[in-house]
Amino acid sequence: MTAGKFIVFEGIDGSGKTTQMKLLAQALEKRAMPVLCTREPGGTDIGTRLRELLLDPTCRDITHRTEAFLYAADRAQHVTEKIMPALRRGDTVLCDRFIYSTLAYQGGGRGLDREFLARLNDLATGGLEPDAVILLDLSVEESISRVLGDRFPDRLEAEKSDFFGQVRRGYLEQAAQWPRLFKVIQAGAVVEEVHRSVLVSLQQVLA
Amino acid sequence: MTAGKFIVFEGIDGSGKTTQMKLLAQALEKRAMPVLCTREPGGTDIGTRLRELLLDPTCRDITHRTEAFLYAADRAQHVTEKIMPALRRGDTVLCDRFIYSTLAYQGGGRGLDREFLARLNDLATGGLEPDAVILLDLSVEESISRVLGDRFPDRLEAEKSDFFGQVRRGYLEQAAQWPRLFKVIQAGAVVEEVHRSVLVSLQQVLA
Repeated sequence: MTAGKFIVFEGIDGSGKTTQMKLLAQALEKRAMPVLCTREPGGTDIGTRLRELLLDPTCRDITHRTEAFLYAADRAQHVTEKIMPALRRGDTVLCDRFIYSTLAYQGGGRGLDREFLARLNDLATGGLEPDAVILLDLSVEESISRVLGDRFPDRLEAEKSDFFGQVRRGYLEQAAQWPRLFKVIQAGAVVEEVHRSVLVSLQQVLA
Repeated sequence: MTAGKFIVFEGIDGSGKTTQMKLLAQALEKRAMPVLCTREPGGTDIGTRLRELLLDPTCRDITHRTEAFLYAADRAQHVTEKIMPALRRGDTVLCDRFIYSTLAYQGGGRGLDREFLARLNDLATGGLEPDAVILLDLSVEESISRVLGDRFPDRLEAEKSDFFGQVRRGYLEQAAQWPRLFKVIQAGAVVEEVHRSVLVSLQQVLA
């Protein structure tokens, strides 16, 4: 169906997705491979507007289910407008977050029905699946300490730690469910080492 | 599951949905029945914001599929925040447009896959179905002449006439598919006569 490869980066906050995606893009460009770097949510104009809406404090009464539809709208637009055209012309597409974030954050973190989310994701992507998912796995403690630096966590941040724990479990469950798709990389190592692990894990996919 | 009745008004522009809904609400209130009048899209705060987004000319690149997800987001919020609580407390809920508009406009008018729309609608409503759908049926010519008054249609309005025709067919196909749910009312008659037909068609539902 498509000529290019589609690679997704996933992980909790502080896991280094942005950095690792950049390093991979540079490595591919050195091999003269055309690359599109993109992200969800916010990969398109309408996605940016939806992101503003989702972060707007006056929209606090929005339910988790409604939120899931807005992410799906962004995703549908993103797949049609950016990802599919790039894959068709043979680009390697690197995407910061995809349907697995929805399953981990809305499913794992917020407790939404996973069957509902899976069906919604399927409608939004039109069935498009990546060739590989790089899961940058980090302990919750390390994630929090990367985000906080030297500060001691306050009550809200302590609550966040529980949430991060649920999200991480949500990711690891998916990795267990789809072992061939998911490449689980220990993200606690130094940046260069993580980058080498990413390259090794993608050897077959990018061959 | 719910104590109240849920009645939906559908029809192309100019068919008199707003007027007929108001008249029915007044008739029910005279019988001391508590009524909630609402509409889609825009029944909730977030719905209003989404509506602004959908009508914003800078969002012209939005695809029909993305549009369908935004309507679904509005609908999910509307069902959870307004319709279900009202039905649970025993109110009669009158709603200007519901999932049948999506099927007629996005399916009939814009040619989106109906299976996709039906699955999306089902996720958005959580399976909630109305007790009756009042379809105010009007010929395309009459609809256009009601909207235009005495003016002669320009090119864009002539195109609109084709679109209205497809939407109307989309509605009538649904009425044929769900004959017990749909009450098809000839909306070309005078307002009071249409109102009487609405009342008669709902006799059993509201008994």
